Order: sequence, then structure tokens, then C-alpha cells
Amino acid sequence: MLNFQYFMPTRVLFGPDMIDQLGETSHLPKGSKAMIVIGESGAMIKHGYLSKVQSQLAKQDVQSIVFDKVMPNPESAQVDEAAAICREKEVEFIVGLGGGSTIDSAKAIALMATNSGNYWDYMQSGSGGGVEPENDALPIVAIPTTAGTGTEADPWTVITKSDSAEKIGWGNDSTFPVLSIVDPKLMLSVPPKQTAYTGMDAFFHAVEAYLATCRQPASDMLALEAVHLIAHTLPEAVANGDDLEARTVMAWASTAAGMCESYSSCISHHSLEHALSAFHPDLPHGAGLVMLSKAYFGFLASRGEERLGDLALAMGDTLQEDLEEEVPGVAFLDALDRLITQVGLADEKLSDYGVTREEIPDLAENALTTMGALFDITPVPMSQDDVIAIFEAAYE
Amino acid sequence: MLNFQYFMPTRVLFGPDMIDQLGETSHLPKGSKAMIVIGESGAMIKHGYLSKVQSQLAKQDVQSIVFDKVMPNPESAQVDEAAAICREKEVEFIVGLGGGSTIDSAKAIALMATNSGNYWDYMQSGSGGGVEPENDALPIVAIPTTAGTGTEADPWTVITKSDSAEKIGWGNDSTFPVLSIVDPKLMLSVPPKQTAYTGMDAFFHAVEAYLATCRQPASDMLALEAVHLIAHTLPEAVANGDDLEARTVMAWASTAAGMCESYSSCISHHSLEHALSAFHPDLPHGAGLVMLSKAYFGFLASRGEERLGDLALAMGDTLQEDLEEEVPGVAFLDALDRLITQVGLADEKLSDYGVTREEIPDLAENALTTMGALFDITPVPMSQDDVIAIFEAAYE
Ligand SMILES: [Fe+2]
Ligand SMILES: [Fe+2]
Repeated sequence: MLNFQYFMPTRVLFGPDMIDQLGETSHLPKGSKAMIVIGESGAMIKHGYLSKVQSQLAKQDVQSIVFDKVMPNPESAQVDEAAAICREKEVEFIVGLGGGSTIDSAKAIALMATNSGNYWDYMQSGSGGGVEPENDALPIVAIPTTAGTGTEADPWTVITKSDSAEKIGWGNDSTFPVLSIVDPKLMLSVPPKQTAYTGMDAFFHAVEAYLATCRQPASDMLALEAVHLIAHTLPEAVANGDDLEARTVMAWASTAAGMCESYSSCISHHSLEHALSAFHPDLPHGAGLVMLSKAYFGFLASRGEERLGDLALAMGDTLQEDLEEEVPGVAFLDALDRLITQVGLADEKLSDYGVTREEIPDLAENALTTMGALFDITPVPMSQDDVIAIFEAAYE
Repeated sequence: MLNFQYFMPTRVLFGPDMIDQLGETSHLPKGSKAMIVIGESGAMIKHGYLSKVQSQLAKQDVQSIVFDKVMPNPESAQVDEAAAICREKEVEFIVGLGGGSTIDSAKAIALMATNSGNYWDYMQSGSGGGVEPENDALPIVAIPTTAGTGTEADPWTVITKSDSAEKIGWGNDSTFPVLSIVDPKLMLSVPPKQTAYTGMDAFFHAVEAYLATCRQPASDMLALEAVHLIAHTLPEAVANGDDLEARTVMAWASTAAGMCESYSSCISHHSLEHALSAFHPDLPHGAGLVMLSKAYFGFLASRGEERLGDLALAMGDTLQEDLEEEVPGVAFLDALDRLITQVGLADEKLSDYGVTREEIPDLAENALTTMGALFDITPVPMSQDDVIAIFEAAYE
């Protein structure tokens, strides 16, 4: 019988030019001192987004300091460094401005600003210390500039510890952003390749949330909506980055997929990818997911996962009557293949990122230990040998 | 271009036997003293629900006092009375157990427990004082025992002031319940007629949220889901109240429709009904909505409201190809007519509740003044003469 928890307390302000609300909203966290967290690439400065956020905060009499050292796969050492600054400067809330890595870092920094020790002490798997944080995180404001991770609508933060090659997700109720401003105009500047990578990340969040055994009616709806919209819009957003309508649809799809991460969850596809990018920090998360996807969902299809058929229908090139003559999983794999080609990612290869066949057993081991919990909610059981076989198939 | 706020911070625990979580959840508001608000009918005592809630709270070392004077159309005087008890006894949170009137009362009591003066001072329309509350409400726990108002997933409370015949909705961020436990087993005891009334209330919340000009993608999805489920399940829940599956589907549909009240809104159909039950406190809210509905949605259909066609599709007896040959509104009106018959409410008449034709101008005036804001988000403009005409048509 139907049974679930529905909880996603973040206030999301969505729409073009919504960033201007930052200076006016009454829903900004209390305080007069904020840290703005941005990536090391300088993109937020170049596009003028940082100065826009600073001036909007100034309108609300909030002074801000900037932490600009976040890397694409953010490191726990940087989290600890930024948190020390927050404590010293008595920062009252954290603003994450940028892609998923930046907002995830903002969440982790917010947690460590109010708790002692190091971030890794609080990780619950792998080499993490397993400590429960004593205090709630500082309030978090998320301002995404890519359509992908959906971290603006979930409590999760994914941080890497490179010296032990671990990339682990974590979160609690206090790491839901208090306020998220999703302004598709801030996404117009994302280059085609990154648009494809991040868009496919959102796609897989929705796909996986639809398959996870912890799904609920609201995540099913949001997931099918996101899958439908991404399949129909991402190719256009990649081809024509200036198309504000395509960017707006992708922004909503990505946020909807993020909500799915709160109401349901990713499955082990993400565990496998985290292993890949923990071993190879230059590998973009979305690229890793795409390169694993045909092998991974092929495995689910081979085990008869029928809900893949609903996803094929949502992607729109399959009709109910075709589906009745086909294995549901096959229809999804065909549609997935087409989408990957349309967004220009058909030629991505694991070996191009330095992944070797010899690493595969270690990758499988890593996936099962650092992100093992996701296997429990994957609809099909997977042994270590199965995981190795999926990596092998993806490598070919 | 797409533009909205998404905000519904309540934690909803949903499912049969979920009430047992009340004694175990870590998400109960802080405090050791609660007020449990129930209706005057004695049903919560008779069915053992009150003692169940009391013993679950005791497991969490929470003492509770009971306020049992809530009437079907709850009165502001009772709110003030209960709030005075809360202040005197230093109650720390409020539990609303029962139908919509009870939970709405719990919200209003929670607000007045922390603010001075009388509840009506804070009403923003009609004879209300227009004061803004200084303090947040006490934390609210909602435990609905009917599938109808959806108040467990929105901030709204509807309270009546009979001496001036006003029934007004109000709410702010602090009147969202902190925790709502939606347990369909608590709904098995609702008699057929009340099941029909409350179920139709939920139906119209979803219908209206789908039509409101402040709608957003998430409310559209939830509304179509609720409309679909109610059209297919309410007749069964009315006919066979012991059917836990039908009760569970209706519970989710009602909560989903409540979420629609947070992400979107009711339209002026509710303004007209509030006028009716402000003048005739014995008239059940759901009955009022049903008796107005054919005239009200007939008016929208006559003005060419096309989204009524989507609702007809969701109700399931209309196919896309039929819709292309029919006025969309007519398909919806046909489906509505069938549903009202199936749930046994085809013979309800306004005159049976003491409504007179002479009252109609005053009813229209009342609808436009006490709940005037809903006319602004109704997709079709309505003059005072239009409202009078709708009441006249409903009276026939
Ligand atoms: Fe992801
Ligand atoms: Fe209602």
C-alpha cells in the first residue's frame, strides 16, 4: 500500500530575471554577512554574475566575502578551508553561485561553519568518520547557473576526497537551501558541451528517481515531466544556447529532477559514476553517466525492468502500441541512444579520460563501498560481478 | 515566460498506519505541552482516534490538553477562546485532529496563541482589522481524518464570523503545518455522504488550481493527477467506505489537491461557496461547491475556457478525438454531471439548505468583498451581475 514521506522545504523562485528578486525578497536568511561561493574558473566574474549577486545583497544591507576556489569535482580540503574563514569572519549565511559543484560546496561549507572537526569526519561511508553533526548548517541560498544537478531542490552535496579517491553524497534537513533562485538567463552563457553534460545529468536524475524503489507519486510525475522535457528540449539548448525558451524549459526540467532527488532518489548508476570521477577528477559527472548509461540501463533491461517502457513513452518517440510489441527496456535504450547522439555525446569514450580496463575491479569495489546505499533502492539486484560486467560493457 | 514560486515546507508522512509514527518521529515540534484540537461531534473520541494520538504523544513525553468545541464551520470566537487557554497553559504546539474545520481551527489557534488581540483583527478583507501578525504561529501538526480540504498541505485556514456572516481564508508561512500525518485508515469511518462532500471539495481544489492564472507546472501535474484519481475512485469510496485502497487513493488525491492550494490557488468558485456557507453555517462546504458547480463552470465554458478540456481528459471518459469535435467546456460539464450522480449528490438543492432567491444579491456582494482576491486569478472576468447570474442558475 502507498507509503511515503514528502518533504522539500526550499523556497524556489523560478523564471527569467528572477535574480533581481535577491535584492528585494523578504525570504533572504537573516544576517548582514554572507559568503558567496564560486568556482575557480572565473566564469562568474567574467559574465558579471558575481557582481550582480553582490549588488543585490548590498541592497539588502548584506556584506559579502567571496570564496573562489571550488574545483569541478569539489574537494573536502577546500570545504574545511572555507568553513574556517566563515567561523573567523562570523559569516551568517552562504550563497552558492554556479554549477552543481559550487552549490554542493556551499552546502558543505555551511555545515562545517557551525560544526567542529573536518568535513570528512561526518561522511557516513567509505573512510568517513561516521560522526553525526551537532548543529544545523548555516542557511544556504542556491543560485544555479547550469541546468543539471538540481542541487537547488535537494539537500545533497557531493564532495570528493582525492587522496583516498572517494566521492560521497551527504545531506540532512539543514542542507536544503532556504532559498533557491533559478534564473534561466544566467544559463545562456553555458557552452554547448557543458550544456549537454549537465542536461544529461538532470535526465538521469529523473530516470533513476522514476526507477528507484523508494519512489512516490509526486516523484513519478516530476520525473516523467523532466524526462519528457529534456528529451524534447536539450538538443535545442545544446545547438542554440541563446534560445531563452529552451534554457527556461531545461532549467525547470533540471529543478524538477532535483525535486525528484528529494522525493525519491538516484540509483546505483550514480554510484558507478561517482567511482569513475573519484578516480578521474577531470571527468565531468554528466559525461561519466552518459558513458555508463547504455551498459547500465541495458543491464536493467535484460532483467526485465518494465518501468523503462514508461520512460520511453515520456521521451516521445515510442507509442503505446509499439511498446506492446517490444521489450520495454529496448524502446528506452533506443530512445536513449538517439538522445545521446542528438546532444553530441555519441563519441565519448572512457579511455579518452584515462580510464583503464585494469581499474575496473577497483572501480566496482569503490562504487559498492562509497555509495553502496543506492544499490538497496535499485529495482534490480546487482552483485559485484554484475557491476564489473557493466563497467566492462561500458568500456568497449 | 515561465515564472513561479514553489514553496510547501510541510513534512507529509503518508500511508496506512502512519499514525503510529507520531510516537516515534524525530520531526515532532519541540516541546512537552500540546493542545489537541478536535470537533464538537465526539467522532474522534468514539473512533478512538483521540486516545491514540494522546498515547502516541505520551511516548514522546508530550502532555496534551484537548479543545473540543470546533463546529463544522469554525467560529472566530472559539479560536480566541482556545488561544487564551494556550497562553495560560503555555502550550508549545498545536495538533489538529479531524476534518478540515478542525485543522483550520488548529492553525488559527496556533496563530493567536502567540499574537495579541482577536483573530478577526488579522483578517485582511471584509470587516477584518487588516493587522499583520507580529509573531509566527506555534508549530502545527495536522492529522486529517477526511479526504477533502487538503489543509494538511497548505497554509490556509478558513474561519467564520457568524454575527457578520463572513467566512474568510487566511494564512502565512508559519501556518503551514510542520508535520502532517495522512493515514487513510483514520478515514475508513467517514459516512458515505460526508465522503462525497469532502471528496468533491478536493476535486474542486484540483480543478480550480488547474484553471487559476497563478498556476505552475507542479500544480498542473498534481491537479491532473488528483482530478483523474478522484473521478475514478470517489464513487467507490462513497459506495464502500471499508475499501482501504479507495480510501488511500482518495487520501493521496486530497493531499495532492492541497499541495495545489500552495503551488497555485482556488478561484472564485470558492468565493461563491464561502458566501453560501457564511449565510448558512449548516451547509457543508463540499455540498455548496457541488450545487454551484454546474452553473459556475458552465459560465467558464460559455466564455471558451479551453483548459476545461484537459480536465475532461483527466476524468477519463473523453478521448482526445472526441474533444476535437466538442466544445472543451461541454466535455467537462458532462463528466462533472456524471461524477456528481455517481457520488450520490445529484439531488442536492440550495433551497433544501434554506437558501432563498432573495438572498442572491447579498450573496454575490459577500463573495466579491470577503473573498474578492480569488476573482483576480480566475481565468475569466466576472462582474457582479455575472456572479448574480451564476447564483440564479445554480438556484434553478
Ligand atoms: Fe548527478
Ligand atoms: Fe474547499
